[in-house]
Amino acid sequence: MQRHFDIELEKLKEMLLKMASHAEQSVTNAIKSLTETNDDLAQQVKRDDSILDAFEKEIDEVSIGLLALKAPLASDLRLITIAMKISHDLERVGDEATTIARRALELNKEPQLKAYVDIPRMAQMGLEMLHDAIDAFVNRDPAKARAIIPRDKDVDALNKQLHRELVSFVVESPATITRALNLMVISKSLERIADHATNVAEEVVYLYEGTDIRHNKASTAESKPS
Amino acid sequence: MQRHFDIELEKLKEMLLKMASHAEQSVTNAIKSLTETNDDLAQQVKRDDSILDAFEKEIDEVSIGLLALKAPLASDLRLITIAMKISHDLERVGDEATTIARRALELNKEPQLKAYVDIPRMAQMGLEMLHDAIDAFVNRDPAKARAIIPRDKDVDALNKQLHRELVSFVVESPATITRALNLMVISKSLERIADHATNVAEEVVYLYEGTDIRHNKASTAESKPS
Repeated sequence: MQRHFDIELEKLKEMLLKMASHAEQSVTNAIKSLTETNDDLAQQVKRDDSILDAFEKEIDEVSIGLLALKAPLASDLRLITIAMKISHDLERVGDEATTIARRALELNKEPQLKAYVDIPRMAQMGLEMLHDAIDAFVNRDPAKARAIIPRDKDVDALNKQLHRELVSFVVESPATITRALNLMVISKSLERIADHATNVAEEVVYLYEGTDIRHNKASTAESKPS
Repeated sequence: MQRHFDIELEKLKEMLLKMASHAEQSVTNAIKSLTETNDDLAQQVKRDDSILDAFEKEIDEVSIGLLALKAPLASDLRLITIAMKISHDLERVGDEATTIARRALELNKEPQLKAYVDIPRMAQMGLEMLHDAIDAFVNRDPAKARAIIPRDKDVDALNKQLHRELVSFVVESPATITRALNLMVISKSLERIADHATNVAEEVVYLYEGTDIRHNKASTAESKPS
């Protein structure tokens, strides 16, 4: 019985890995659709969102099925409930990718307001955080997960800096407002992707160390509500 | 054993009800802090956020404890996992209340840009949706839950209308940009609260009808990513 259970748990982890890879690809494509003025890529991101939605539903079903098996160990229980939470975060990352793609489609219609430097950088930082968090989950590495959490502040700082810069554009030239607002939304979406990566990292710490550091005001409060 | 289990399930529901009532109160206070220019109330919302965080952790612990009891029924399993999801949505509602309170503190420092009419209305609509969704959960009423979902569109429409209006303010007078952006963030937070209420409603339908309507593009796609 336990053997069969372990095989099922491995399958669950593999599904999460696949889902994470889809989510990362969508964010990458969404940013590319902006930096390369590629509307087709943006449309693809919108279509691919349903793949992530389907993954979340499937992971939920598999998890509930596993919970229904007789008396899993306490540690397995925790792993299963956290797999469900991580898949929810990944689905939300997909939603943010869709938001970015929609705004990219708007922005691609108009002349570029400024060179896109900070935005690809924020995307890269968020994606690296997400990748490391999933890695820490799969490799049972809470130390690696812990090290991700402070990186969230750097993404927040870039978001704030870009926000200020865009405000100054609008003040100087009000006609730029639509483009500035679209870029602010994209920047905020990237900041949220880093928040989701941080959530995953916190879940991984909780899973393997038993320490619940979610909503730990010292580490994440400033970054969370905007 | 099952009797003890039922008592624990009832406790879980009661915790969720209490948590929902705290979340609603925080949103109400956040909006009041703006409409009544009451900074103390905004500070209280920020402090109360930790209550909701603590509720989420406690509901998670109780849920995992219940799952660890021997072989719950499939329907109970689903109820427990959905209770965890709902508590996560309520925690996020609390985060939005904090966001609103922070922006209210900024706005309260400056002259009012426009009469606050749409914002209290959006708040009321979102709170009614949330209240009905929790009611549907506690009273096992999937029909009531289903009826909540289309109301999300009305909140989205108000958010978009207010957004357009605020853009026109800034175009006419760029000095209003900081206030306009703060009001846009508040409006967006209220739209997100309605999204969370919609999520809860969808979870309740899934719980009692077995139909998974989450990410049902026909009903919610337009409203979700922005």
